[in-house]
Amino acid sequence: MYYPEPITKLIDSFTKLPGIGPKTAARLAFFVLEMEEDDVLDFAKSLVNAKRELTHCTTCGHITDQDPCSICSDPSRDGSVICVVQDPKDVIAMEKMKDFQGKYHVLHGTISPMEGIGPEDINVSTLIERLKDEQVEELILATNPNVEGEATAMYISRLVKPSGIRLTRIAHGLPVGGDLEYADEVTLSKALEGRRDL
Amino acid sequence: MYYPEPITKLIDSFTKLPGIGPKTAARLAFFVLEMEEDDVLDFAKSLVNAKRELTHCTTCGHITDQDPCSICSDPSRDGSVICVVQDPKDVIAMEKMKDFQGKYHVLHGTISPMEGIGPEDINVSTLIERLKDEQVEELILATNPNVEGEATAMYISRLVKPSGIRLTRIAHGLPVGGDLEYADEVTLSKALEGRRDL
Repeated sequence: MYYPEPITKLIDSFTKLPGIGPKTAARLAFFVLEMEEDDVLDFAKSLVNAKRELTHCTTCGHITDQDPCSICSDPSRDGSVICVVQDPKDVIAMEKMKDFQGKYHVLHGTISPMEGIGPEDINVSTLIERLKDEQVEELILATNPNVEGEATAMYISRLVKPSGIRLTRIAHGLPVGGDLEYADEVTLSKALEGRRDL
Repeated sequence: MYYPEPITKLIDSFTKLPGIGPKTAARLAFFVLEMEEDDVLDFAKSLVNAKRELTHCTTCGHITDQDPCSICSDPSRDGSVICVVQDPKDVIAMEKMKDFQGKYHVLHGTISPMEGIGPEDINVSTLIERLKDEQVEELILATNPNVEGEATAMYISRLVKPSGIRLTRIAHGLPVGGDLEYADEVTLSKALEGRRDL
């Protein structure tokens, strides 16, 4: 027993977080000991509150503290465009951009046969329900540009195609500020393929 | 407002920890949302418990959940040797080694005129009291081998010297497994200076 028990437990808790090994966990735990007691109580409370108060919006699947979420229930947003993303963090990234005025649908994952994740394991069925109930004109598939993301976009596009809703996929190409010299072949090929008239 | 409020608060709490920026904090906060509720409650409890139950040992200054700490109150340990360290983490490092059977004294810092930390700001006065009350034969100065650590060791040695207690400083030299080629000049000079007969 190197550490007193309360600190061992705290180190164990920190170690469970992603990217935090035993050394970092010990450093964080010792930092907590030096923090003001009120700050520690706030930290503990915010952990419990975040876990207890946040749920997934039954409409779009985004994390929220009210159901439906603030985006789904916002009358100023354009319900005719739905942007399909993998993860709540992707919604945040899109919202930071401030350019998109439509609504979202969060899949909570991608189809990945290698990991045994099929279409029934992600939030697709509620998307299909939404397309029936809501007046949707365009579905933007914004899953990540990797094998799983492409497969998921392909799956959804095949499923939705017959309904006649416009299906779009976000553009692949060179990131702004990127360098042609350092771009990988696939990205470069996508950038060429997606070239536009000036 | 990109995130629902409970998660914003949690991200803020994580951001207060050392070495955790806004992006990592967001990643950790989202991870917490996916954790089991019991694990989150345990985490919150361990935070509060660590802060509330741990104090500094009034004898040696080490962090502890009982006073005096388990090392100070252990009759099997040799009270005639006291190892002076900067930080509770240094006690842990020494204890992991399993070679030292004496007791400790934790300074909680080093003298650093640049940062306005004088001898009265670190835990030295209780050390002087201990040397009067306890039967101490040797004081091992194990502050870090940098400017502040050396200055602190020097200060304590001058203070204690008149009492006739044996004063020692941990050895400086090449770390085991180290490489002469990559050692800096000061370390190499210390290693040469501290050479021993075979």
